[in-house]
Amino acid sequence: MERVMMKGNEALAEGAIRAGCRFFFGYPITPQNEIPEYMARRMPEVGGVFLQAESEVSAINMVYGAGGAGARVLTSSSGPGISLKQEGISYLAGAQVPCVIVNIARGGPGLGGLNPSQADYFQATKGGGHGDYRLLVYAPGNTQEMVDLIGLAFDKAEAYRNPVMILSDAIMGQMMEPVVLPPLREVAPDQPWATTGKRGRTKPNIINSLGLVGEDLERINTELQAKYARMAADEVRYEADGVTEADLVVVAYGTTSRVVRSAITRLRQEGKKVGLLRPITLWPFPQQILAELAAAGKRFFVVEMSAGQMVEDVILSVNDRAKVTFFGKLNGTVPTVREVYDRIGALLSEGGEG
Amino acid sequence: MERVMMKGNEALAEGAIRAGCRFFFGYPITPQNEIPEYMARRMPEVGGVFLQAESEVSAINMVYGAGGAGARVLTSSSGPGISLKQEGISYLAGAQVPCVIVNIARGGPGLGGLNPSQADYFQATKGGGHGDYRLLVYAPGNTQEMVDLIGLAFDKAEAYRNPVMILSDAIMGQMMEPVVLPPLREVAPDQPWATTGKRGRTKPNIINSLGLVGEDLERINTELQAKYARMAADEVRYEADGVTEADLVVVAYGTTSRVVRSAITRLRQEGKKVGLLRPITLWPFPQQILAELAAAGKRFFVVEMSAGQMVEDVILSVNDRAKVTFFGKLNGTVPTVREVYDRIGALLSEGGEG
Amino acid sequence: MERVMMKGNEALAEGAIRAGCRFFFGYPITPQNEIPEYMARRMPEVGGVFLQAESEVSAINMVYGAGGAGARVLTSSSGPGISLKQEGISYLAGAQVPCVIVNIARGGPGLGGLNPSQADYFQATKGGGHGDYRLLVYAPGNTQEMVDLIGLAFDKAEAYRNPVMILSDAIMGQMMEPVVLPPLREVAPDQPWATTGKRGRTKPNIINSLGLVGEDLERINTELQAKYARMAADEVRYEADGVTEADLVVVAYGTTSRVVRSAITRLRQEGKKVGLLRPITLWPFPQQILAELAAAGKRFFVVEMSAGQMVEDVILSVNDRAKVTFFGKLNGTVPTVREVYDRIGALLSEGGEG
Amino acid sequence: MERVMMKGNEALAEGAIRAGCRFFFGYPITPQNEIPEYMARRMPEVGGVFLQAESEVSAINMVYGAGGAGARVLTSSSGPGISLKQEGISYLAGAQVPCVIVNIARGGPGLGGLNPSQADYFQATKGGGHGDYRLLVYAPGNTQEMVDLIGLAFDKAEAYRNPVMILSDAIMGQMMEPVVLPPLREVAPDQPWATTGKRGRTKPNIINSLGLVGEDLERINTELQAKYARMAADEVRYEADGVTEADLVVVAYGTTSRVVRSAITRLRQEGKKVGLLRPITLWPFPQQILAELAAAGKRFFVVEMSAGQMVEDVILSVNDRAKVTFFGKLNGTVPTVREVYDRIGALLSEGGEG
Repeated sequence: MERVMMKGNEALAEGAIRAGCRFFFGYPITPQNEIPEYMARRMPEVGGVFLQAESEVSAINMVYGAGGAGARVLTSSSGPGISLKQEGISYLAGAQVPCVIVNIARGGPGLGGLNPSQADYFQATKGGGHGDYRLLVYAPGNTQEMVDLIGLAFDKAEAYRNPVMILSDAIMGQMMEPVVLPPLREVAPDQPWATTGKRGRTKPNIINSLGLVGEDLERINTELQAKYARMAADEVRYEADGVTEADLVVVAYGTTSRVVRSAITRLRQEGKKVGLLRPITLWPFPQQILAELAAAGKRFFVVEMSAGQMVEDVILSVNDRAKVTFFGKLNGTVPTVREVYDRIGALLSEGGEG
Repeated sequence: MERVMMKGNEALAEGAIRAGCRFFFGYPITPQNEIPEYMARRMPEVGGVFLQAESEVSAINMVYGAGGAGARVLTSSSGPGISLKQEGISYLAGAQVPCVIVNIARGGPGLGGLNPSQADYFQATKGGGHGDYRLLVYAPGNTQEMVDLIGLAFDKAEAYRNPVMILSDAIMGQMMEPVVLPPLREVAPDQPWATTGKRGRTKPNIINSLGLVGEDLERINTELQAKYARMAADEVRYEADGVTEADLVVVAYGTTSRVVRSAITRLRQEGKKVGLLRPITLWPFPQQILAELAAAGKRFFVVEMSAGQMVEDVILSVNDRAKVTFFGKLNGTVPTVREVYDRIGALLSEGGEG
Repeated sequence: MERVMMKGNEALAEGAIRAGCRFFFGYPITPQNEIPEYMARRMPEVGGVFLQAESEVSAINMVYGAGGAGARVLTSSSGPGISLKQEGISYLAGAQVPCVIVNIARGGPGLGGLNPSQADYFQATKGGGHGDYRLLVYAPGNTQEMVDLIGLAFDKAEAYRNPVMILSDAIMGQMMEPVVLPPLREVAPDQPWATTGKRGRTKPNIINSLGLVGEDLERINTELQAKYARMAADEVRYEADGVTEADLVVVAYGTTSRVVRSAITRLRQEGKKVGLLRPITLWPFPQQILAELAAAGKRFFVVEMSAGQMVEDVILSVNDRAKVTFFGKLNGTVPTVREVYDRIGALLSEGGEG
Repeated sequence: MERVMMKGNEALAEGAIRAGCRFFFGYPITPQNEIPEYMARRMPEVGGVFLQAESEVSAINMVYGAGGAGARVLTSSSGPGISLKQEGISYLAGAQVPCVIVNIARGGPGLGGLNPSQADYFQATKGGGHGDYRLLVYAPGNTQEMVDLIGLAFDKAEAYRNPVMILSDAIMGQMMEPVVLPPLREVAPDQPWATTGKRGRTKPNIINSLGLVGEDLERINTELQAKYARMAADEVRYEADGVTEADLVVVAYGTTSRVVRSAITRLRQEGKKVGLLRPITLWPFPQQILAELAAAGKRFFVVEMSAGQMVEDVILSVNDRAKVTFFGKLNGTVPTVREVYDRIGALLSEGGEG
């Protein structure tokens, strides 16, 4: 096992390659350009293909092509590019084509800025494209998870024949931390459903998302929903740190979870009972653990770099059985440890009084 | 006041023109092609501009141009096209450019089919594009509302400098009903903020959504959130039919609300206490009336042509104070009056036992 | 008749409108941007359409559409843009769709520069696109001809159902001279062959350039060649100034003809016998007058801003019956009157000795 | 040396690879699709890159990229596609980027048909793009030359830093003949002028065709013209078969040269003195041998599948010193041996009388 210092974006790229990804299609956009840059250099070394497409729309459709042929294929972008890819993502989901899509989120809406943001949560988890579909969405909390979760993402994409999204942000992508890299895997793209020629079968494989007759489309959707139910049942991941003994559970993911961790470390040193519940999958959302904690009388504090998106899923999970307080930093700035520390402190005193 | 028989799509198009819309940019997709077809013929008659763009992406960016110049501008599409427009929609919202976007939804995800669907609810209400933004979303329940709500949409778009969406579906678009058309309005595109030249001012108007410095972007987002709060406070619209005396309140919009209405008409004839709460704005969602009805002990039944999207907003509104049951027809088929009648009947009996 | 001072590019644009042109499609490129700019402002005033296309390729295909519907339609560009339009031009010629194409030539090849050039002569006259086709090519020699020849171009395009090109250059386009403008004509686009619906005919009009069966394609080409022969017989235009009495005939067009004129004015004052033969049509080329002058014993001097293109047509015309000398300024600089004066002087002495 | 039966298109593709070509960018068009198809399969086997671009315009610009990096790069198309590539070709010539461009010509103009044609001669030899530039143009006369000339094309492209064109046609591309294939060459793309990074040099290599200052552009063009003069002096290739003893010299290339050869074989058996002059380079054109034959009193007969294009170069070469007769089959059909035999026979009798 190698241990090396890497930027988040590069760790993610190398992690993808180690997991057998051999196709990358993308279009440049800050703050994720280290990913295509790394891929442009690295892919030829492993016999893979890097292609800078003529647009975000093209890139996601190339992903459809490679994924449909059973290959492990990656694309990455930031918010505006992910928006342009929504039609393609809906097609990939509808046609059950496995692939991994990375969003290194920046501030929005619109052109916005290059600061980190968590305001693409709804887009990732509720489906920014048309129709009922779901992506499995992972939110890495450190550079090691950039490597680990992208590997997992490729395995799950293939297992479920479903697009998987990594939702990270500008800080996670730029931050350097030591990582342990797994060995290089070669994954033969020989899926039985792939459109790579008949190979002796009587009937050709066909991949599409067409259901012109209503009943056909309903059947497609029933199959999809059954799959999403399996994913919801089996794929939830989260980190729970001191939640059982806590009075207040802070819910945060990605960059904000790091700020929260620093704040609660201090608060614990002062004897405060604060826990961290960090969703690692944003969809499926860790509803059950939150419902259980709510049933056990905990209160909740949600910290996001957005106007409040994940907080809806927290409320849907605890469903009026517990008090949920929200603190959001709007796109542009990151909450400081001090801000979070103060707010948790205030909530705890309030709770003590309550 | 003229009273004429019109298809929903055409009624909507004529309604837009009567409301002063003089620019239409779009790209063809079934089942909304009657809108561009009508506009292609009608726009020249009123001195307006119809342009079939080279792509959905182009169309939404042309909307940005015309809207930025202060004109009343419309685009329409169906699910896949609306997905392609997500980047543009986020830019329009971020730059506070007024415009109206119509989604005559069809089955999805992916290519899907031409049957009606309500599975684009999340896309419309939670923001399919990147960043924290909100559209005012109207869901017409009959052809007259196709005319009335698009008129309102243009007024509100201008009042709030915000994109407004009409979310309708393939059945609503094709159905013929008598409508009363309002008189033709001419609306001078002379907005003080529009980018139409300096006109004696010292500083030029600039429209964008750029906030490279974190604090600038935060200020933009704070301003947007304040506007969304005003919209949430002032713009909620719904139809409440017999909800006060009801044991069970059915929540439905658009085509499903019509099916529900037929079912509850029968049930009431049989003496059952059933009400209909039809959101006319999907965002802002009629949370308060639902919360009040929940507090008054009502139970809720949500009917959608989706795997369950609006039901989340109902749950968020009633927040565990009431039982919410969901019935969704997956993309492809429409619930029948009989199906809805039976399910409501079952729920009422169950409730009686409870 | 109005007499006004106008830039060449604007005079050409106004001349097009006066000649009934009501559609302009183009894409910006220096040094011809005054044409689209003028059209953007002026077209709405006359009920016409100005559209900036998304690319040069789109623009020429829009020309195909409007021209195929029988309308008077213009596009303009400079060298690189005209190159991108070659496929479209070949299609327009093959399908016999009338239109006018303006090339305000700049230095090349490649990106080149903004200086005037005559190095697009071969492209214009020999067909830069694929297949045997011919454009009628006019080369204005002053601003008045910018107005007059574009009017003529529209009439001839319609008369022959053929694309007509105006080949001018950056100096001609920028130069200001007084012009007399003709009255505004309205030309109804009601061509019997136009694809504007059946209008009571049994068979629809079809416009294309397809000839999959060899004999069909041969018939199309035979018809085209017969038309080109008629054009070659009837459409030659040139200005002959003092050629009968001259020992040396200078052949030049456009900007270089203006330099030559200044030089021979001086030479004549010194008693030298020099004439100017200025082709106004570059195709069909004034072969016969050149052949006659050659038969009468004249010598020829060809001046171009190119490495030597029109000189080939002069040689083909005089066919070894006369001496042809060439002087070309390569793209980038314009020949000075002094340079031309000196060279003619040298040739005359040489001739005197000969 | 391997001897194998191959189709012309495939022989050409394999020939390119054997000559070190490792990059192919193209867009599909009949009748040359065997080339990209072959390349798609073969390139990965030799570590090369095959990419089907999103358009002809993209393909030629990708050629610019690979060629600018010093690699041996090929694109192929047919007439309409070559027209779309004219801007790119002019840029390649202007920037002196080596590459090979193949035109497997089909009938035109416009959409035309799939029959062979020689009507793209002017486009290839006079420059279909803007500005004064020249391509070295090879016209293979049999399948072996498909292999040999494309190898030569890559060497010459590199030697002159100039685009080289292979102008062939639909029959040559489809015809199967035995060929001897040369061994596989690996050619390191390490050109001193290539834009592949500084590599220890002080100044970076820059490749462009920009000359905004007139004098700069003139210098670029002077350099280009000097190069073209060297090419004209050194690169002429032709096959002369029995021309010295002939009364009549038939000039033909490609497919028509094959028909002519059959006709003159018969005629010679009958004792007629007929020769064949087959240009192998269309530019530079074999002017000198034609001038010498004209001076020796020969008459000329030019056979083309066009309305008469190469015949202009023959006339320019013999320059009224000899009679030139033209026989052209318009796009769509190929001249038969009988037709050519009869016409030569008629010309010979006529000549006997003359």
